Amino acid sequence: MPSYQAPVRDLHFVIHELLDLPGHYQQLQGCEAVDSDTLNAIVEEGARFAEEVLAPLNRIGDEQGCQWRDGQVTTPPGFAAAYRQFAANGWTALEKPREFGGQGLPGSLASAINDMLFSANHAWNMYPTLSSGAVSTLDAHGADDLRARFLPALIDGRWSGTMCLTEAHCGSDLGLLRTRAVPEADGSYRISGSKIFISAGDHDITANIIHLVLARIEGAPAGVKGISLFAVPKILVNADGSLGERNGVSCGSIEHKMGIHGNATCVMNFDGATGYLLGEANRGMSAMFTFINESRLAVAQQGQGHCEASFQGALRYARERVQMRAEPRLQPEQPADPIIGHPDVRRMLLTQKAYAEGGRMLNLACAQLVDRLHHGANAAVKDAAARRLALLTPIAKGFLTEAGIEAAQLGVQVFGGHGFIREWGMEQISRDVRITAIYEGTNGIQGIDLLTRKVLADDGAELHALLDEIDSFCASGNAPAELASQLARHVATWRELTGWIRGRQQTDANLIGAAAFDYLMLAGYTLVGYHWLRAAAIAERELAAGNTDSDFYIGKRETARFYLQRLLPRADQHRALIESGSANLMDIPDSAFGR
Amino acid sequence: MPSYQAPVRDLHFVIHELLDLPGHYQQLQGCEAVDSDTLNAIVEEGARFAEEVLAPLNRIGDEQGCQWRDGQVTTPPGFAAAYRQFAANGWTALEKPREFGGQGLPGSLASAINDMLFSANHAWNMYPTLSSGAVSTLDAHGADDLRARFLPALIDGRWSGTMCLTEAHCGSDLGLLRTRAVPEADGSYRISGSKIFISAGDHDITANIIHLVLARIEGAPAGVKGISLFAVPKILVNADGSLGERNGVSCGSIEHKMGIHGNATCVMNFDGATGYLLGEANRGMSAMFTFINESRLAVAQQGQGHCEASFQGALRYARERVQMRAEPRLQPEQPADPIIGHPDVRRMLLTQKAYAEGGRMLNLACAQLVDRLHHGANAAVKDAAARRLALLTPIAKGFLTEAGIEAAQLGVQVFGGHGFIREWGMEQISRDVRITAIYEGTNGIQGIDLLTRKVLADDGAELHALLDEIDSFCASGNAPAELASQLARHVATWRELTGWIRGRQQTDANLIGAAAFDYLMLAGYTLVGYHWLRAAAIAERELAAGNTDSDFYIGKRETARFYLQRLLPRADQHRALIESGSANLMDIPDSAFGR
Repeated sequence: MPSYQAPVRDLHFVIHELLDLPGHYQQLQGCEAVDSDTLNAIVEEGARFAEEVLAPLNRIGDEQGCQWRDGQVTTPPGFAAAYRQFAANGWTALEKPREFGGQGLPGSLASAINDMLFSANHAWNMYPTLSSGAVSTLDAHGADDLRARFLPALIDGRWSGTMCLTEAHCGSDLGLLRTRAVPEADGSYRISGSKIFISAGDHDITANIIHLVLARIEGAPAGVKGISLFAVPKILVNADGSLGERNGVSCGSIEHKMGIHGNATCVMNFDGATGYLLGEANRGMSAMFTFINESRLAVAQQGQGHCEASFQGALRYARERVQMRAEPRLQPEQPADPIIGHPDVRRMLLTQKAYAEGGRMLNLACAQLVDRLHHGANAAVKDAAARRLALLTPIAKGFLTEAGIEAAQLGVQVFGGHGFIREWGMEQISRDVRITAIYEGTNGIQGIDLLTRKVLADDGAELHALLDEIDSFCASGNAPAELASQLARHVATWRELTGWIRGRQQTDANLIGAAAFDYLMLAGYTLVGYHWLRAAAIAERELAAGNTDSDFYIGKRETARFYLQRLLPRADQHRALIESGSANLMDIPDSAFGR
Repeated sequence: MPSYQAPVRDLHFVIHELLDLPGHYQQLQGCEAVDSDTLNAIVEEGARFAEEVLAPLNRIGDEQGCQWRDGQVTTPPGFAAAYRQFAANGWTALEKPREFGGQGLPGSLASAINDMLFSANHAWNMYPTLSSGAVSTLDAHGADDLRARFLPALIDGRWSGTMCLTEAHCGSDLGLLRTRAVPEADGSYRISGSKIFISAGDHDITANIIHLVLARIEGAPAGVKGISLFAVPKILVNADGSLGERNGVSCGSIEHKMGIHGNATCVMNFDGATGYLLGEANRGMSAMFTFINESRLAVAQQGQGHCEASFQGALRYARERVQMRAEPRLQPEQPADPIIGHPDVRRMLLTQKAYAEGGRMLNLACAQLVDRLHHGANAAVKDAAARRLALLTPIAKGFLTEAGIEAAQLGVQVFGGHGFIREWGMEQISRDVRITAIYEGTNGIQGIDLLTRKVLADDGAELHALLDEIDSFCASGNAPAELASQLARHVATWRELTGWIRGRQQTDANLIGAAAFDYLMLAGYTLVGYHWLRAAAIAERELAAGNTDSDFYIGKRETARFYLQRLLPRADQHRALIESGSANLMDIPDSAFGR
């Protein structure tokens, strides 16, 4: 089983050298006090928690899973205690509003911590991150009395939260949902219906669970314009914040899944449960997107986290496993060499490394935008951050989860037969990561969101601003010229292709659907390429300046080259598929699929 | 859980319309009696066995797995009974030599059956196919007395066989193996050592197990040139064929694996066990390749079989699951359409279909070569078949197992959240198929085998014969011109690239290792493209002739187009990566990988 080592050196690179988060915090309202030392100390603490508390529970969580008996869910041994320790250390309050007991630190700090926590134990870290999404959503859309009633206990970790969207007959298409809400005289609602696939829907970790539930108020319009959002506690909360009676909410069963066994995936039944409207009636989808967008960025971190975990395991194995001769020989006195000497093994390791570190750069760059969104100095800063974040979120979610799946498969492959054996831990990574391409909107949905709502809706304005920024960097002379010109060519492709799609889709109703997934991947390869080019520029500068940590910077320089020469070219492939149009998908009639 | 339906119509297409196996059997020695009716009847029987006996055991096998207690392995409920029925029906004897009770039918018939059996239950079908490899190897290399002693009970299914290669410290690099063989006065040997990852190493299915074991005779040279092959029965066999005493062979434990839970993966301990030399001393690797090559083709069928199973499940779901509007609307009177109407879902389904049916064509074309190898009319026919088969085997194994993994992932994705849930069966496929890229030589090893031993060793002679054949077909005017010209371009790429590698590798010792995997994939895409072009030609002809089964042929035509326009272009990507050389893999020092 791989033992997780928090990549603190690489986090420092991204935090300090790439993004200068301490300088950035000086520009945020209310975060000026977060200096480098504070930041580093918090990252060190997070690293310790990930390595010493969460990583040891990862395989236990997988092997023992959650149990459902008599309507109650029991989490794997150690999970609840770890959560209590986590809450006691203040982690659940880190970036939460001070008004309700939070520490008010910037969200990018929480993201840096989540980088490690998701690598160490994906299933466990879903409990606090889902709860965090519930806090954000309640805080953004809840009336003052609801915020006061629910937020303190959610923020200090006594309670937790969930999101309840999916029903058996609707996942991607929430307009079909049927859960009903009937208004009561006291202003509350009676919620009735059944939700499925509710992560952390029930558990023995916190004393109460606040479910954020999409439902349709009696008489509301059909479709997504008739959906409202409600807060539905597992146990009713008295006006003074103490726990009251059990609400009409129950866990009907849990799913037996491919992975993330440590996180219960619940059928949740609402039988006339008391719920409280959040935001405006019939505007629930919009309110829920506070939660969904935060979760999508968390899922991007999950994908990246699995790249890191899988890379660590594979790298360690490749340095120890001795098999056949390498050129040059690494152990001339032995009959064979460590497999890290073989080019095909290096291809796999470098792919993992490029995704793990490239994904880290992208995720923390997104987190920096979230900081600006919440704490920006003025409305212009906030708006700009919102626009850019809207564009980057589906790319980060879609691309980094695909990367996570690929990296995990490569990790299994580097281990050979041992990769298929449970105790070595690589196959668990490949099972756990699989859900990330599905939940919080499948990657197909991410592609359509990207192309329609994030690119075409504003006529490509925000996209072109991003591409201009990348072009400027390519032309700046700061990065190695050969790599910069490679990236610039792909930026041009992205730009041209977007125009081509915009023109064509008016006469081809299926072009966007046919192009969406490939467009998402092309965007992801290019965007991560931008971050790698920035990393290469820093590495060249430090090496030229004689930085003594030369192994680290040589690693950056060579991984950037690998990425730009061996991963970025895949974007050409996606371009060709987009340009092949939609007819090769649509012409075949259903009946001709056979079987 | 998906219910398996044997793709009999598509098997007929390959058997009759593409390969004309009945005509081919007329050219084989001793197989002339196999006419169309016989062939079809056998396929029908195999379909029934796959659908009615094996498919229902597939999930049981996964959920319950094999158990190891007190040195004995118990297989999942129903597995042993199914094997007895299989043997009683004569399936274990199908293509086996008549001399020892076999039916002497052509091996391509067994391959057509295995197409279905692997789709229905991969774990189960490893028992008879491994046993088949043992029969072939014993028959090819065993002395007459050993053949007479072991083959009848192996062929009629009372006993079974295994291959024992891997040791804890050596998998890909068998030259390192340590298992020892000490000669006895009676001509037998005492075998001592420990083998790992022995599929079907122990079980409760057959009364005896004949292990084919690689070991080093005392004093033999180091490396692969000092390895010999032995037959080591679990229970000693008396001269009259009856069972005697227990031999010094035991199962030390079984592995807990990602998938194929129904097949025990054993640690096998040999403690002075009696073994019998097969073939010449120190030529064991060469003899074992009889087994390995047969197994590699079986693994190619496993990869293809999972494409089929995953496609069937996803297709059925996509026709039933209703979510969002398609263009055109498929159910205007309902609030949403079946997801098969969405282009991104079609992209996934067509990828699966193209792999499943393309892989079937390639596998049965390989099986046709095996027929010629064993039953060809003269030495020239046999030699030609051997050369072509040697070239195609690593491509089929490597490419179709990568295809299987991709198709299985797509199957999970089409199901959305349900794809992650065990009861729907799609995630089992994605776990079971994963081993196929690893065992019988990892796909990295397949790539190196292809490039060094199958392409460069004869200076590309056999490869060019194949490419000439494809070129001729592209130029023949039989296939749609646009698709033919696309394929011809890729054939030219393959040819040029091979010359480029041949020239470059003399001055770059790591070029072959750096190129091997991408070369394998490029070869696979192009080779399967050839089969799809042939299928398109047949489809065009039948549609033009007014064949009433037009759905089937439209499906072929459109899937061929999809393959050539949306999968074959990936070969360009692999070309670019090969041409990027080895420096972007080799320049980074081990220490700069980090962590």
